[in-house]
Amino acid sequence: MPETMKRIVLAARPKGSPKLSDFRLETADVPKPGDGEILVRIIWLSLDPYMRGRMDDTKSYAKPVQIGEPMEAGCVGEVIESRHRKYSAGDYVEGRFGWQTHALSNGEGVRKLDPSIAPISTALGVLGMPGITAYVGLNDHGRPKAGETLVVSAATGAVGSLVGQLGKAQGLHVVGVAGGEKKCRYAVDELGYDACVDHRAATDARELRKQLADACPDGIDIYFENVGGKTLEAVMPLMNVHGRIPLCGTISWYSGSAGEGPNLLPMVWRSILVKRLSVRGFIIFDHYDRFPEFLSVVSGQIKDGSVRYRESISDGLESAPQAFIDLLGGHNFGKQLVAVSSDPTR
Amino acid sequence: MPETMKRIVLAARPKGSPKLSDFRLETADVPKPGDGEILVRIIWLSLDPYMRGRMDDTKSYAKPVQIGEPMEAGCVGEVIESRHRKYSAGDYVEGRFGWQTHALSNGEGVRKLDPSIAPISTALGVLGMPGITAYVGLNDHGRPKAGETLVVSAATGAVGSLVGQLGKAQGLHVVGVAGGEKKCRYAVDELGYDACVDHRAATDARELRKQLADACPDGIDIYFENVGGKTLEAVMPLMNVHGRIPLCGTISWYSGSAGEGPNLLPMVWRSILVKRLSVRGFIIFDHYDRFPEFLSVVSGQIKDGSVRYRESISDGLESAPQAFIDLLGGHNFGKQLVAVSSDPTR
Repeated sequence: MPETMKRIVLAARPKGSPKLSDFRLETADVPKPGDGEILVRIIWLSLDPYMRGRMDDTKSYAKPVQIGEPMEAGCVGEVIESRHRKYSAGDYVEGRFGWQTHALSNGEGVRKLDPSIAPISTALGVLGMPGITAYVGLNDHGRPKAGETLVVSAATGAVGSLVGQLGKAQGLHVVGVAGGEKKCRYAVDELGYDACVDHRAATDARELRKQLADACPDGIDIYFENVGGKTLEAVMPLMNVHGRIPLCGTISWYSGSAGEGPNLLPMVWRSILVKRLSVRGFIIFDHYDRFPEFLSVVSGQIKDGSVRYRESISDGLESAPQAFIDLLGGHNFGKQLVAVSSDPTR
Repeated sequence: MPETMKRIVLAARPKGSPKLSDFRLETADVPKPGDGEILVRIIWLSLDPYMRGRMDDTKSYAKPVQIGEPMEAGCVGEVIESRHRKYSAGDYVEGRFGWQTHALSNGEGVRKLDPSIAPISTALGVLGMPGITAYVGLNDHGRPKAGETLVVSAATGAVGSLVGQLGKAQGLHVVGVAGGEKKCRYAVDELGYDACVDHRAATDARELRKQLADACPDGIDIYFENVGGKTLEAVMPLMNVHGRIPLCGTISWYSGSAGEGPNLLPMVWRSILVKRLSVRGFIIFDHYDRFPEFLSVVSGQIKDGSVRYRESISDGLESAPQAFIDLLGGHNFGKQLVAVSSDPTR
């Protein structure tokens, strides 16, 4: 067992988009588990857009990461030493262990994984937090009915790619919005979207709206919102009466730019009124009681091949800051993971 | 019976706030009812903010009034000639008869009134469309629980004044936002609001937010939205987790000013997400199946004195355009009516 571990801490609070200098790599002694604790060797580290919010010192649904503290993250790892009666060395576990190579845990919020169901990395993606986010957001807040039209922004991302596939399985007309031709092709060819619009190719919201209107001849009944910005502006005029908007993220506004330009609130507020829309913000932590149901449904769909997923893997803990910056810029393709150490199950 | 009638038609589509020259008074012969029709002498004409939307040639939930056509309105009148088996001369009725002194109707959307329940003018206010709007918006979309905090904008208006009183009757802490000291005093002294904040006295949204924060020490669980603008901007940061926003109107944006920066959409969208809010636009036409329930509950509350209402009466059909302009500017006080002809029941 190595004597030292690495971790990445928040060095400075970013203004706008994070820079590499906002992070710092540190080394430390690998800690010893106390009574009731486990020591985990981290194998997979998940990068997710919500982490950008944790870097700011503003009130949100979770407290911010403090300067000098390790960045937060969901991780999958192997128990290498246990003084906890529920865990043994060799167990694979998922938990919020942070941006580091090793972590202690008292087992709170930790879940044991069965590598025979699916690769353990999926516990951070399609069978983890992004997956249940897609499942609850679409089903509970979107309330889909067969034949309706669903638009999914960030259509090939960790959440969006499952939303689209779940929508198709329920008989919806599903249209994605994604950045770049490659992602759009993947959405249609691999994920089964009926169409996918490239927001990078559209010069402005008006152009994007035109392309969306072509792809959604019957208007939009459900808009699964991950991004805000130009896509939201393009979608609103196309929403149908009694439409639903599960609001899951606003990634285009996470790093600055929010506040510029004409005030779009009156247009959006008026659309919600005139079209009698229902907009529902949700944070998946409120809905973990649905986890067993979600896991049984979606792991079945993965086994029978009706749900696909894609991982984007960045190599080594040191690569996490750049991979995270790329994720915020939409340069990842599929669920973004960092391979922190070797995965014996692959 | 007079041989001629008067009506007010839309003369021009307003840019921004309507002007008197956007309306035109016309005279015509009083028409004769055909088979299956009634002729109504209009007594009371209702002025409501939604009418501003009908003057624009934009897609909305109802088609616009055409240039040269009478302005739309709900009215109360007396049947003076009937060739319809369900109505007799002398019946009091409520219907969408428009800005005129006389109207023909085939009875569609017309409701007979019982003057013994309440003054017939209330069929346009607390026991009519504004009343059921308040009732359904608060109960169905607000889902109030005793002890929660409710904020009502346009707190002494036709809708708001009932929302506040219904909220008090259900054990809520109720705070109004209204324009001017007189309205605020009325909200507290007569309608029973716990507090009322004067948005005209607050120089900006920040100042308004401070005053609202003082009046809502436990935050805001339900925001009954009638206005948009500065009030919405002040309310959002005070919303509690899992709060509800029934979106009933955006009067501050009906005539221009919408679109001027900064862009408040990112702030509002982020609040909806982070606080897991539910925003629900509604148009009362979708909910008229609730009318009997509403009428029985609220007419009981009017009879026993637990619900009060106030009317602002403008004299004569000719006064309607100026009264409507004043209504949009918030210069009315209570439900705005036009006395078109004498009310024999008063």
